[in-house]
Amino acid sequence: MEKTGGELSKVSVCLSPVLFYQYAEQLDSDCIVVVIDVLRATTTIASALNNGASGVKAVSEVSECIEVAAQLNGVAGGEREGKVAPGLEHGNSPLEYTRELLGGRPLVLTTTNGTRLLNLAQKHSPKQIITGAFVNLDAVVTHIRAEKKLSESNRLNVVLACAGWRDSVCLEDSMFAGAVVSRLRETGDFQIQCDSAQTVESLYNSAKSDLYENLKSASHFQRLAKLNLFDDLRFCLTPSTINLVPLFNVDTGLLISKVL
Amino acid sequence: MEKTGGELSKVSVCLSPVLFYQYAEQLDSDCIVVVIDVLRATTTIASALNNGASGVKAVSEVSECIEVAAQLNGVAGGEREGKVAPGLEHGNSPLEYTRELLGGRPLVLTTTNGTRLLNLAQKHSPKQIITGAFVNLDAVVTHIRAEKKLSESNRLNVVLACAGWRDSVCLEDSMFAGAVVSRLRETGDFQIQCDSAQTVESLYNSAKSDLYENLKSASHFQRLAKLNLFDDLRFCLTPSTINLVPLFNVDTGLLISKVL
Repeated sequence: MEKTGGELSKVSVCLSPVLFYQYAEQLDSDCIVVVIDVLRATTTIASALNNGASGVKAVSEVSECIEVAAQLNGVAGGEREGKVAPGLEHGNSPLEYTRELLGGRPLVLTTTNGTRLLNLAQKHSPKQIITGAFVNLDAVVTHIRAEKKLSESNRLNVVLACAGWRDSVCLEDSMFAGAVVSRLRETGDFQIQCDSAQTVESLYNSAKSDLYENLKSASHFQRLAKLNLFDDLRFCLTPSTINLVPLFNVDTGLLISKVL
Repeated sequence: MEKTGGELSKVSVCLSPVLFYQYAEQLDSDCIVVVIDVLRATTTIASALNNGASGVKAVSEVSECIEVAAQLNGVAGGEREGKVAPGLEHGNSPLEYTRELLGGRPLVLTTTNGTRLLNLAQKHSPKQIITGAFVNLDAVVTHIRAEKKLSESNRLNVVLACAGWRDSVCLEDSMFAGAVVSRLRETGDFQIQCDSAQTVESLYNSAKSDLYENLKSASHFQRLAKLNLFDDLRFCLTPSTINLVPLFNVDTGLLISKVL
């Protein structure tokens, strides 16, 4: 199965943080991890960077969020159950973090599963950790392809890590992973042998003609729809409106913008 | 969302034994668990019962398998890595357990993930535990529908539990779960709100025109194909050739045949 010349580049999909340990072996210096939390953390991260945030720090707890934001002279925000987290002024809406609000400062965002995945991935020192969402789909794919070309061995494994909802598999994160798998398969430069990757690619292909319509049945879509967050949903499910990749800096713990 | 008259009947899909704990709350006396290990454990269980085995006992270890088979005057069998488990005479081929070999005796089968799921499910005392595979797809669906009608409240939750491969999500188990979801949805009597259920239903719909062809890319298909087990694969992936449901008996720990 392996290509000659060490060019094996595998794409794998991790459907829940609970399953992440299975991908540990792959997380070496030839591997990019893409953390995915479409509704809404990784959409908000891309949006805030696009609106001039100097970086985004993802933290688990509200108290840590407030403390770190004070240290960094940043904006503190985050959600619990789809609403602004108690104790914070700002939530997790990608539309909330405007240029005016951010003023070039960093955003400190409290998330649960997304942050957990960032921490898990860091332990294994992959080549890079980035975040992905439909809003920066093209950018994520372009970045991965460019990194593969840049690598000495022309080898680059990719682990698409879905944050899900309280460890459950989520339709929207799975579907975004499927979108990336589909595009990487089309290039002919990547091997897609992971069963989860094949599953989500099929899911994406069945839904890509109208992501918004086809994601209406997703449990987290319905949760946000009950809170009337339709503008957020529309923004999160419109592909490739933002042309940057949030890139995790191991030294500072900040996600910073790589404009493509 | 809930129907009136306590008729809520939910279908959920658990994609890996690692995720099973998330379904614990649903596992009450109104819930059927379907354990799925298409290649090949749950196919072999259905096949052995169809060929006259008086019951099937699933155990984890080879030593236990030999001991229990001696106690029950049964046939011991099982696989490790797709091959006959070291120490046993018979493997995990559904074609191996003929009427001649079985002679009306029980089969004691050593499996890993399937047995683990049976044990996990038992702890929560659901209404029933059955096993499913493509070979008894129609029977599984017919049985579930009949049990719903028989229940006093006309309420029956269903958890479709995929065994996977070493905790990884498997294409064939996911696809079988999708086949059951698809058929239960068509009845109009079940709610399909679980994101995993929607994912596997989409997967099944994309592949149902030719299961065998579409499962050739599955990692466990390829593992068995390398061992030239094409007859087994063909048998495992041909739907509804066996009209019974293996039903777990809590008192004896045996799966026994319910002929439909």
